[in-house]
Amino acid sequence: MERTLTKDTINKIGQEVLLKGWVNTRRDHGKIVFIDLRDRTGIVQIVASPRLVEGLHSEDVIYVTGLVKPRPEKLINPKLPTGTVEIEAQKVELISKSAELPFDMGKENLDLELPTLLDYRSLTMRHPKVQAIFKVQEVIIDAFRKALQAKDFLEFQAPCITPAVAEGGAEVFKVKYFEYEAYLSQSPQLYKSLLVGDFERVFSVNKVFRAEPSVTTRHLTEVVSLDAEFGFIESWEDVQDMEEYVVRFIFTEVAKHCQHELEMFNATLPKLSDKIPIIKLREAQQIIFERTGRDCRQEKDLAPEDEREICRWSLEKHGSDLVFISHFITKLKPFYIQPDPEDPTYAYSVDLIGRGVEWSSGGQRLNDYQQILKNAKEWGVREEDIELYLQSFRYGVPPLGGFALGAERMTMHILGLKNIREAVMFTRDMERIDVSLRKNNPVPTGQ
Amino acid sequence: MERTLTKDTINKIGQEVLLKGWVNTRRDHGKIVFIDLRDRTGIVQIVASPRLVEGLHSEDVIYVTGLVKPRPEKLINPKLPTGTVEIEAQKVELISKSAELPFDMGKENLDLELPTLLDYRSLTMRHPKVQAIFKVQEVIIDAFRKALQAKDFLEFQAPCITPAVAEGGAEVFKVKYFEYEAYLSQSPQLYKSLLVGDFERVFSVNKVFRAEPSVTTRHLTEVVSLDAEFGFIESWEDVQDMEEYVVRFIFTEVAKHCQHELEMFNATLPKLSDKIPIIKLREAQQIIFERTGRDCRQEKDLAPEDEREICRWSLEKHGSDLVFISHFITKLKPFYIQPDPEDPTYAYSVDLIGRGVEWSSGGQRLNDYQQILKNAKEWGVREEDIELYLQSFRYGVPPLGGFALGAERMTMHILGLKNIREAVMFTRDMERIDVSLRKNNPVPTGQ
Repeated sequence: MERTLTKDTINKIGQEVLLKGWVNTRRDHGKIVFIDLRDRTGIVQIVASPRLVEGLHSEDVIYVTGLVKPRPEKLINPKLPTGTVEIEAQKVELISKSAELPFDMGKENLDLELPTLLDYRSLTMRHPKVQAIFKVQEVIIDAFRKALQAKDFLEFQAPCITPAVAEGGAEVFKVKYFEYEAYLSQSPQLYKSLLVGDFERVFSVNKVFRAEPSVTTRHLTEVVSLDAEFGFIESWEDVQDMEEYVVRFIFTEVAKHCQHELEMFNATLPKLSDKIPIIKLREAQQIIFERTGRDCRQEKDLAPEDEREICRWSLEKHGSDLVFISHFITKLKPFYIQPDPEDPTYAYSVDLIGRGVEWSSGGQRLNDYQQILKNAKEWGVREEDIELYLQSFRYGVPPLGGFALGAERMTMHILGLKNIREAVMFTRDMERIDVSLRKNNPVPTGQ
Repeated sequence: MERTLTKDTINKIGQEVLLKGWVNTRRDHGKIVFIDLRDRTGIVQIVASPRLVEGLHSEDVIYVTGLVKPRPEKLINPKLPTGTVEIEAQKVELISKSAELPFDMGKENLDLELPTLLDYRSLTMRHPKVQAIFKVQEVIIDAFRKALQAKDFLEFQAPCITPAVAEGGAEVFKVKYFEYEAYLSQSPQLYKSLLVGDFERVFSVNKVFRAEPSVTTRHLTEVVSLDAEFGFIESWEDVQDMEEYVVRFIFTEVAKHCQHELEMFNATLPKLSDKIPIIKLREAQQIIFERTGRDCRQEKDLAPEDEREICRWSLEKHGSDLVFISHFITKLKPFYIQPDPEDPTYAYSVDLIGRGVEWSSGGQRLNDYQQILKNAKEWGVREEDIELYLQSFRYGVPPLGGFALGAERMTMHILGLKNIREAVMFTRDMERIDVSLRKNNPVPTGQ
């Protein structure tokens, strides 16, 4: 008999079906046992005699042959998509036996400490609420691609191994590359920019690596970066318009495909007004000063409390959970940023702040070859370290800009997760690669 | 005025348009100059007086305002999609000046030596025929995703940094990971397998890294792997059926979206019969022996000449450019391969061979925890190095299998490229990361 997926049982009342999945939970009621069977499409209730399901417990993989029956009106479970039916088991086959679980997986919320959640990642990712995180993330990433493909952007595969560190070297991972030293990419910035000279519009879903020796709720060493870059812009505002379009598209897709997942987390998508407000760094600081009396007007960047305050302002004043901040200080940005000609102290750089934290950064880049050369020198970037990038601009590149969004960060802030580690399947941080490093890799390098 | 893309000029006859792009070629004819203007959608011919385009040459970025005029019947260029029109320039603005080109980019074929093609990658990727390669590659990767999403597979982001080397360690890159040693992933195999315990069906478009110290036409150190894995299979043949579906889907999409690109390379998609033939390793060797007299029947694997011969057989006998070879020798496969119970010397492993070379490998994997433990020991794999993988199987996993296709390899063999380096934007091999390592990184590690 062909397999029926649990979600399709509601259309097969009165029919015999073969179901395949995991024992999600088991409840014994004397002469009758209820099993919630889980497969990739959800859960359905199996009713069986104890004899048929002897010894079965959570996470055993079973095949169940049975009859789909409608539930009596008063036993209908409105919270379950298959809550109108149950399966009267005729035959139950054990396919793969599970060990006893280290904790209860049957609860609506897992309620585990983070280290346990991650140490048992293979198991905890079976929980519907954990699975929901990665379904939302898949939709986010897919929507990013669709939004840009619709605008003629070419998807490229940004490299992970890079020959040099062009943007400050403190937080980079080194790779022993035959007899050379190479590095893990901190950003595909130079690649996506040079590709504008070839394809005009490119995007990439790629890994970036940061060797930051800090354990926070926001830092990972390997993350998924959603990068876009395009040429023939009229002004730096074109970049932020494109980003706004992409972000709105992502929210629309999440709303369309992830209602159930959002509900599980009691999450609502960020509120947006007709247009995401955009203000300059100095304007933001003035607003913060006026609202709180805290004078940050001479600061070179927004502090975390400033980001939170400006988001409160944006929501109150403009009804928007997101706000663009532009015109950061040129000298604190990488060498390729385009300064504002009216006041070159500030640059055409734009951050997107949402719900109190940074979601992305972007801006207009230099496209004049001589200016790039001059800035590289001033910033202390060696020409030979950016050879392919310089080559592109030597041969004619239009005005360009772009932005990068973090996939995990976006997932985290859409669902309201407390720690970014919940938004990545396999955590890489200072103390962990999958499992704790101290446990798994007891011999540090060089000892 | 709003920008018009070159491809849209044919619908704007009689109108004034603003075009933006690169000077692809320039031809001077006394009082008139022809410029082929290139943008992301193609090329259109500009007609200008010498005064308007003084000093302009290839790769200059220009904005052209002009009138779209129909070409006289006898001047229509049937090879150009915009060959029915030309633009009478009224105003030409230089936006970004290009240096003199190191070689002629205006020819139909670039005809460069490979090192030059790669050393000037920023420039050579502007050539329409080089761009075609990456358009085809984008379609291949996108089709892989679409095919599997249509079958309920979840896309996941396979990690690049791994804590241990679980499948033989000679060809792996080491990463200095804080005070630990980590490695670049050779394959997402263990991750995709363990995820079957969570999501049933997963796929990933991910980077894999091979530190093979060999310079061939087929080897890169960083490549894009298209990985799929799924559970609840009935037999190993389900794996190969899914792979066949995916490969057919990819070919269909390439045929649909890349006719022009295929024509540029004079390429035809591999021929397929109703069903891709599948034979066992030993059967293939017998066929080769009978056809050529060369006795490879005791060999443990197919040699390159065997792969070519079996492809010839497949095409002659079955009308198929692709052929599945199954039942390789268990002991030569990784520890997780499922042996054939009828003769455990041979395994349920399946390679897809096409046009004389391997396109992919896959097969059924072990799902019995005790058997996995036993094999890991026999194969010399340390339990602590595969902790998260073992965890998954400890808690119940259905019969499973999967396969991996190489994106660059597929691009190469569909278009008939001679060297895999042509099918990757930024080559990473033993001697090169973007540009030649000897040039760019003159101080080897440790000196």
